[in-house]
Amino acid sequence: MTGTLVLLRHGQSVWNAENLFTGWVDVPLSEQGEGEARRGGELLRDAGLRPDILHTSLLRRAISTANLALDSADRHWIPVKRDWRLNERHYGALQGKDKKQTLETYGEEQFKLWRRSYDTPPPEIELGSTYSQDSDPRYAGIGAALPRTECLKDVLARVLPYWEGEIVPDLRAGKTVLVAAHGNSLRALVKHLDGISDEAIAGLNIPTGIPLRYELDEDLKPVKAGGEYLDPSAAEDAIKAVANQGR
Amino acid sequence: MTGTLVLLRHGQSVWNAENLFTGWVDVPLSEQGEGEARRGGELLRDAGLRPDILHTSLLRRAISTANLALDSADRHWIPVKRDWRLNERHYGALQGKDKKQTLETYGEEQFKLWRRSYDTPPPEIELGSTYSQDSDPRYAGIGAALPRTECLKDVLARVLPYWEGEIVPDLRAGKTVLVAAHGNSLRALVKHLDGISDEAIAGLNIPTGIPLRYELDEDLKPVKAGGEYLDPSAAEDAIKAVANQGR
Repeated sequence: MTGTLVLLRHGQSVWNAENLFTGWVDVPLSEQGEGEARRGGELLRDAGLRPDILHTSLLRRAISTANLALDSADRHWIPVKRDWRLNERHYGALQGKDKKQTLETYGEEQFKLWRRSYDTPPPEIELGSTYSQDSDPRYAGIGAALPRTECLKDVLARVLPYWEGEIVPDLRAGKTVLVAAHGNSLRALVKHLDGISDEAIAGLNIPTGIPLRYELDEDLKPVKAGGEYLDPSAAEDAIKAVANQGR
Repeated sequence: MTGTLVLLRHGQSVWNAENLFTGWVDVPLSEQGEGEARRGGELLRDAGLRPDILHTSLLRRAISTANLALDSADRHWIPVKRDWRLNERHYGALQGKDKKQTLETYGEEQFKLWRRSYDTPPPEIELGSTYSQDSDPRYAGIGAALPRTECLKDVLARVLPYWEGEIVPDLRAGKTVLVAAHGNSLRALVKHLDGISDEAIAGLNIPTGIPLRYELDEDLKPVKAGGEYLDPSAAEDAIKAVANQGR
């Protein structure tokens, strides 16, 4: 018997609210996002889900979401592991750019390709530029692996070793594992778990702040494909809203 | 060369504000306490102190203080270790009781003994009572070591193994270590570091929300006895205020 996996995408950030590409830029949650995070914790608590360990990215919006949710769920005291491999997709030179303006400048086709294609990354970010992380102390240990842009395929390539090396051992130990992360690091994980094709993953959106629960069998395959959102109707509404971003 | 130790006592909790004995009861920060925590982080940042790792208790007021302070200091992404051995002193049967009323009921001498004597614990808490932690899942692993009351001597006896086993290795590795904890777990640590006598420790108060920095030599002795508060004049004022609690 393996443990239970709970995925939680961070609540709205101030740049989500302003419709800017964020990627690795470390923006805080908006007030709405803080509320979503607390509500996510209440959903955990009401479902009787008690995370034994938390895995987060190194970005404030995921860390704060986890802190607020776990405080609501009275699980603020559990152990924490943080790793850059759970970070959002690096959005390259688009980081800090307005989504609507980018859509207008480059056209729908190019915009869609950058946002949703599996293997086409945006142009690389310039080192030393405002929204580059090349001198950020939290990434000092990464060295040459520090991305300058990423497509979803690149994200999967760095999420998987973390999944295998850090998360799977916790699940095998029977723990309930909370992963608080980002739209694209979680899409990469779900692609792997549910065996979603490179094409089909483009249509998959994960809503913010609603815990997604997976029970996994002995081969770490989902007992129910796609898992179960703790608030299915809110998840459905939110998924539609995410799909319309940039419009 | 060893690293730098930074001690941070949590900001005001809602029970500090109401003048109740708290101990292991897991009350949240007050709004004032949240402000103190953020200010503590600003002091860290302004002093150029960059914690590499955080150690906290399992209590929400220390965890939230660390979360808010590290967010202010842009160090929210550092690794975290949590342990019950950094918890506040267990206040036994006094947990949840009004300090002023306790003073009136038992008299100044007994009150002082319970609050400040080195080796006289309050009466034991009744198992299963409202403010007992005997069925709290976070302490399930402690077993028979779960305290039902503690004096400062008892706190030192559980803090020291954590200091030696978990904090010292980080310092020896040259790290800047932040310990976010409580009045009495920090007093115990300071007693050990500065070699304060069982009698003299009664007069030592640690203010809330003001980081206390220790540079340690190769024998882990403070280069400067008592360390240095990052805001010395605020610390002095706050120490006087703590000394007058319960009046």
